[in-house]
This record gives sequence, C-alpha cells and structure tokens, in this order.
Amino acid sequence: MTIDLNADLGEGFGVWRLGDDDALLDVVTSANVACGFHAGDASTMRAVCASAARRGVAVGAQVSYRDLAGFGRRFIDVDPVTLADEVLYQIGALDAFARAAGTRVAYVKPHGALYNATVHHQAQADAVVAGTRAYGDLPVLGLPGSRLLAAAGDAAVPEAFADRGYTPEGTLVPRSQPGALITETAAVVERAVRLATRGELVAVDGTVLRAAARSLCLHGDTPGAVAHARAVRSALNGTGVEVIPFAG
Amino acid sequence: MTIDLNADLGEGFGVWRLGDDDALLDVVTSANVACGFHAGDASTMRAVCASAARRGVAVGAQVSYRDLAGFGRRFIDVDPVTLADEVLYQIGALDAFARAAGTRVAYVKPHGALYNATVHHQAQADAVVAGTRAYGDLPVLGLPGSRLLAAAGDAAVPEAFADRGYTPEGTLVPRSQPGALITETAAVVERAVRLATRGELVAVDGTVLRAAARSLCLHGDTPGAVAHARAVRSALNGTGVEVIPFAG
Amino acid sequence: MTIDLNADLGEGFGVWRLGDDDALLDVVTSANVACGFHAGDASTMRAVCASAARRGVAVGAQVSYRDLAGFGRRFIDVDPVTLADEVLYQIGALDAFARAAGTRVAYVKPHGALYNATVHHQAQADAVVAGTRAYGDLPVLGLPGSRLLAAAGDAAVPEAFADRGYTPEGTLVPRSQPGALITETAAVVERAVRLATRGELVAVDGTVLRAAARSLCLHGDTPGAVAHARAVRSALNGTGVEVIPFAG
Amino acid sequence: MTIDLNADLGEGFGVWRLGDDDALLDVVTSANVACGFHAGDASTMRAVCASAARRGVAVGAQVSYRDLAGFGRRFIDVDPVTLADEVLYQIGALDAFARAAGTRVAYVKPHGALYNATVHHQAQADAVVAGTRAYGDLPVLGLPGSRLLAAAGDAAVPEAFADRGYTPEGTLVPRSQPGALITETAAVVERAVRLATRGELVAVDGTVLRAAARSLCLHGDTPGAVAHARAVRSALNGTGVEVIPFAG
Repeated sequence: MTIDLNADLGEGFGVWRLGDDDALLDVVTSANVACGFHAGDASTMRAVCASAARRGVAVGAQVSYRDLAGFGRRFIDVDPVTLADEVLYQIGALDAFARAAGTRVAYVKPHGALYNATVHHQAQADAVVAGTRAYGDLPVLGLPGSRLLAAAGDAAVPEAFADRGYTPEGTLVPRSQPGALITETAAVVERAVRLATRGELVAVDGTVLRAAARSLCLHGDTPGAVAHARAVRSALNGTGVEVIPFAG
Repeated sequence: MTIDLNADLGEGFGVWRLGDDDALLDVVTSANVACGFHAGDASTMRAVCASAARRGVAVGAQVSYRDLAGFGRRFIDVDPVTLADEVLYQIGALDAFARAAGTRVAYVKPHGALYNATVHHQAQADAVVAGTRAYGDLPVLGLPGSRLLAAAGDAAVPEAFADRGYTPEGTLVPRSQPGALITETAAVVERAVRLATRGELVAVDGTVLRAAARSLCLHGDTPGAVAHARAVRSALNGTGVEVIPFAG
Repeated sequence: MTIDLNADLGEGFGVWRLGDDDALLDVVTSANVACGFHAGDASTMRAVCASAARRGVAVGAQVSYRDLAGFGRRFIDVDPVTLADEVLYQIGALDAFARAAGTRVAYVKPHGALYNATVHHQAQADAVVAGTRAYGDLPVLGLPGSRLLAAAGDAAVPEAFADRGYTPEGTLVPRSQPGALITETAAVVERAVRLATRGELVAVDGTVLRAAARSLCLHGDTPGAVAHARAVRSALNGTGVEVIPFAG
Repeated sequence: MTIDLNADLGEGFGVWRLGDDDALLDVVTSANVACGFHAGDASTMRAVCASAARRGVAVGAQVSYRDLAGFGRRFIDVDPVTLADEVLYQIGALDAFARAAGTRVAYVKPHGALYNATVHHQAQADAVVAGTRAYGDLPVLGLPGSRLLAAAGDAAVPEAFADRGYTPEGTLVPRSQPGALITETAAVVERAVRLATRGELVAVDGTVLRAAARSLCLHGDTPGAVAHARAVRSALNGTGVEVIPFAG
C-alpha cells in the first residue's frame, strides 16, 4: 500500500509570499510548483526545485492560465492552441530548474480555474494534455471523472481531498453547500488514513465510496491547513502505508 | 571557410507582430528567438522553432530583461542571482518548443539592453553565463571583447555587424556619431563578404581590422534591413564560403 | 440630422503598433482609446489624446479585461467588484492624458470580449456601469439591446456597424455565418448613409430595420478597413448629415 | 508646530498582501498609495483610498517604475518622456479612486528605486516633476537635497527618517555601513520627537543637524516597523506637536 501527498508550492511572486513552502516540503511527496503564469518567479522556482530534490519530493508543473492579477483563479476562454503552447512553455521553464537541481519535472497538474475548467471543458482539457504530451510522457494529476483525466488516458493520475466533502456520486460538494469543507483535524486525518489504507471515502450522506486516488491533495495556504497536512502525514507514517511520490 | 548568419526572430507578442520572420528564416542559419521576457509568446515560439527546425536553422535563446513594455531595450539593475534564474527560465521555456520541433536550443544570445550591459557589466555578464551553464554546455553569442564572452570562456562565439561602422580599436561606432550605420546595400554586402572570406573589417578611418567573428548579425526590423540580409546571403552563396550554423 | 463615427485607437504597446491612428483620427469624431489593459501604453495614450483634442475628436475610454497577451479578446470570468474597480482605474488613467490635452474622457466603451460579454452577462454589464458611474456621469457606448445599455439607463448610447450583417431581429449575424461581413466599399458606404440619413438598416433577408444608433463603429485594423472608413466619412460629408461627436 | 507622518500603503497585488495597511492608517496622516506599477491592484487602491478618506488621511500617489516582478526596487534606465507619461498615468488612475472616495490625490512620492534614482538622476527627476505637473499643482514628497525636490521648486516637500542614521552632511548613512538603521524603539521615538519639536536630527558622529522636514517617513513592512510607527505617533500625540497632513 502506497499513497502520495501533493500540495501547491512556490506561489509567491517577487517580494510577495504565499503559504509555507518549507513546512509543506517536509510533509508532501509531490510538489505542484507554480511556473510563473499565476504565481512563481524564476528564483522561487529554483529554490523550490532545489529543496524538493534534496528531500526526494517529486516536482510537478502546476500549469495555469496567464493571470498573475487573478492568481489563475478566473476562467479564461483561451484558445486551445494558445493554451497548449502555454502549458508547454511552463513545463519547459520549470524543467530547467528541476534539471539544474538534479531531477526532472515528473508530472503536470493544472491550477485553480484551469483545474476546474478541465473537469468539464473538453477543448481545454485536450489542450492541457496536448501541451503535456508535446513535452513528453508525463503523468497528469487531476480529479477522477474529469475530462482532463479522460483525455490523459494512461497518463491519468486521480487524486482525492481529505478536507473536502463528497456527494454520493463521488463529486465534490460545492463550496456553497453545507459539508463542503471538513475543518476538524481528526476528521481530516481519519479520512486520509481510510482513503490510503482502504481506498474508501465517506460521502456526506454516509455512503461509502470506492476511491481510486493515487495521491491526496493537501492545502497549505493557511496555518490550519499546514497543521492538517502535518497531522495527515504523521498519521499515515503510523500505518502500514508507504508515503512516496506517485511519479518520477 | 564557413560563416553563420544570425538575426532576431519571433519578436511579436499576442496580436502584435514585428519584423518578417519568414523572410529572415530563408536567409539566416541561426535564429535568436525571443523567449517571452521582452517579446515572444508561447505560440510564436512554437511556430518559429518549427520553421527553423524544418529549414535546418539553429535555434538560439534570445534572453532578455523582463520588460515587455520597454522591449528589453532599457538597462535594468537587476540582481545577478535573479538575472541568472531568469536566463535559465527563458532557455528552458524555449527548449520545450525546440524539442517539440525535433531540435534543441543550440546557443544563447542576450537581447537589447542586456546585450549592451554585458559588454561592460561584470556581474550581469557572469549572471548570463551562470544561467546558461545551469542549463548546459551552450555557446554564448556576443560582442568580441565583451565581459560576456570573457566570462563564457570556451563557450564564447564572437559576432560582427556588416551594417555597423567600427572604430580603429575594433569597437562599434556609437550610434550618435557619423559612420555608425552603413546603409548602402552594396557596402553592407562587400563588408559581409570580406569578413566571411578574409576575416577583415575596415574601420571608419580605413584601418583594416582582423575580425574573428564566427557569425554575422543581420537585422530584419525594417524592409530595408530584410533586403540587406537577402543580398548578403545571396552574395555569400556566390563565394566559396559555406553559410552554416555555428552551433548545433 | 447628426451622426458620430467611432473607432478603436491607440492599440499598440511599447514598440508594437496596430492600426493607423493618424488615418482614423482624420475620419472619426470619437476615439475609443485603449487604456493599458488590452493595449495602450502611457505614451500612446498621451499622443492619441493630444491628436484627438487638436482635431475636436471626442476621447472615449476603451476599457478592457486585463489581458495584454490576449488583446482583451478572451472572456475572463472576473469578479464584478474587481471589474468595476478596473474600469474605474482605466478611466482615471486615460482622463489624466485627456485633461493634459485640454479635454476630458467623454464616454466609455468596452473592448473586445468585454464588449461581447456585456451583451448578455448581467453582472459584468452592471460592473462596467458601476465603474463608469464611480467616475462620473459618462455616456456608455454599446450594442442596442445589450445588458450593458440597459444597465446604463439614460447614459446608454447605441451604435451600429455598417460593415456587419444584421438578422431580421436586429442582432449581428454571427461571424461563422454567411452575410456576417460586408466587404464591398460601396455597400458599406450605402448602409452608413442610409443609417445616418434615414435611421434604417437592411437585414440579410431584406427586412428594413429601424436603427436608433447615434454612432457608427468603423474599423481600422486593416488597410481595407481604413479605406472603408474614409469612404464612409466622405459620403456622409456629401449628405446633409452633420458628423459630430455624440458626447463631450 | 506640526508634523506629517507618511508611509507606503496598498502594496499588495492580487492575492498577495504586504504590510499592515489598517494598522498604518491609524498612525499616519499621509498614505503613499501604490498605483499598480510596482504593486497595487485596482481593488486595493479603492479600499485604501476609502479608508484613508474616512480617517482624514491624505492620499498620495506612490509612483514607480513599471516593475511588478522587482517591486520597483531596481533602477530602470527608462526614457524620461516615457517616465513622465507613466507618472501621469499612475496619478490619474489613483485619483479616480480618491475622487470616488470623496477626496483627491494630494501629493506625489516616488517609490523605491525611482526615489533613489531621482536623488541624483536629473532627467528622471525632471520627468517625475513633469508628469506630476501635467496632472496639476501637486506637492512632491522627497529627500532634502535631491534633484527631485530641486526640480519640484515650490512644490517640494522634504521628509526625514527617524529610523535611519544620518551623516554629518545630512545624507543617509548607506545601508552597508554601521549606524544605517536605528532599531531601538526608544531611539526612534526620541529622534522623531526631537525632529518634530525642534527640527533637529543627530548625525552618527553626534553632530546636530537642522532638518527642514515637513513629514516623517514611517515603515510598515515588518511587525517591528509597525510598533515603531505606533510608538512614534503616540509620543508625538503627547507633545505639543500637531500631527496633520502636510497636503490636501
């Protein structure tokens, strides 16, 4: 039994910082590194890649819409050809730092609004996969059931969220509805362990779902989130589950 | 006897175009491709790399200050560590498109104000070389006598300009002085051929200079410049000089 | 009888140019000036405002999504509060140049994808109007029947297109369908004159539509478009219609 | 006896935050508001202007080089005409928010590297003043003895720093030398009070300098700096000095 833990890293820009990269790098096994389009300058990318490589954490390209002002959180109706090219640009830029650190970009995961869009938007899902394949044979990390993972084929790697509620159909409870967020550390940890050890998620109505997730997405943009992440890692270490990168 | 012809390409951005990429790609053997910092979006980079690869034109990373608004023509007193990281970012991004086109980034040449700065500015010259070396063992194209080429060591590739006047000391006549620009096509062609066949440049006072240039820089941002470039290529083809990329 | 002629101007950025501002400023009575978000740098804004003021051409703020790379042509699902603030920012910036030229921003017109979005997107239409009203009591130029003009109330100014086909319902024929573009100069001129003198547009099926347009939108991004614009202006000058700004 | 307290505010961008705007707005009488070139998005500008207006804090345009990635801290050898235009653009944009909040931009202060450059760089100092004058008759806040204040003439407003060491000649001790920064709260407060009540600064060698400062610059980018600022304000409130905006 193995599980991967992934989180977004390197999401500052210039003088601005966001999240606690050092804390998360001690917890995760896969780092979704911002590539300069929604966040992430060159020096941050170098530093995160170097730290990840030292720790054996896999480096992933957290590709995004070109939108610093909106942090990539706004849907942009970008032409699929442009999007594929911009995905390729971001992967290449990040891989320069990964190589300099003695490793390689090991996977691709879309960020923010692009992640959400590629759940349903076929053309953008295809574009992300096309941009990725233009670089090479890289896994694509995303939401089970998404157009993105369908387009990725054998390269698809499904992830799950221990701190999000699920519907009986296995989709995420929208943030506007009750049960969308699980805030109790104990509950988050329990869900993470059950997922990793038994491949199960419990939906908001109690339904037990089979979850094929190979990675668990952790958040680190609040102090509470970092505490959750640490608790999850610690609990997993105490089980028979091996916490290792899914890729690389 | 061989000579390389290089020119700046892919210097549009979004809807905006600059120069005649197709015309220049039929003339040059090395394309200095803009990497997104002073010009060049992802789709332009893809298109130029694909066209260059089809024609056997070498792809070079035309690295620049981060300055779209100023087209990289303004000195920025950027920290050398940041600069080295930004050089690495740009090379990596461009190489993604070069690889997708079946080739590789074959060399690095700084653009505009960074080119000018690295003639004398030791820290920035070192930073460009450091960023380049972090990517790999790539030649650096630049001005003979510059700090940049001194820092590049064995990787240094000197270039010359057939349409610029030279002082008896072998430096370029400043643009503010008479003789800085050679505008007659016949004169430009004659200088190019003499440089390629005999390794000589004639200074403004008639002094004959030995020029070790392995590449000749052509301009393409005006219709006249494209005509010069074509005439130079045509004349060189009529001599015994082989016009081939210096790198790759 | 009066009519206004408007066109997009100042849509270069840095070294890049687009369209023939000087030619259009001799034709139009209202200049939709780019404000830096999809195009338009500070020096371009100053120059266009000065030229417009000298000629008695009204200066309008061509407000846009923040998207230089996409030239404002891509829908962005930007939060309405952010959008209203960005509209206000752009109007204020442009007005500084208008004032320096001895005039004022006389109206607001959304650009590209924002223009298209605010036809149907209530929240973004309201946001554009809110941002405009926060600056002052400025007319809003747009498409008849749009949410934008409905939200603008008394400030709404409808425009028409002499080079676009109309459905019998008075909407534009989509660009993907036959009859969307009218390319014959004579036809464009005839439609412009009929609209200005009789308030009528002929739909693709021959239906005669009543058109309440107070301004006619001309294009200038191709040599042919500039020729159309000149021909329209010249023909209108030969009728009893007075070609004057609708605002200011 | 009166003194003004100024500080940099609104220096976040998008999701990123910097400094404690609310804390500083309770302390200062003049807010140097970032205008979008080194920091500051439209919504931040609106919020800071509204808060400042409610508190009677004067709004100043903290104009900067166009350099989000470098936070305006790097000298850019920008053409003076461009710089003047960009200063005008920034003032106009900010004034839109100031007006919407019921106030006006009351002064201009250059940020970061532009502040430092205009101490000695005549052309850039002239450009900042030219851009300011193109907007109107606004005071310019800066360093005593700078080219900037000389160029500003009657509009010049000198400031001083209670937390920086001064040479016997009245210039700031460079940050690379001992005595550059005063870190003890008691010392900072004492210097602020002496400056406000007696117009004196004590240099690193004990020389007592006459200081004509009409404003005291406080910093807020560290928790310690905010504590200093509060202590200074509190101490000044306990003297006979009236703490009021110098402008507006």
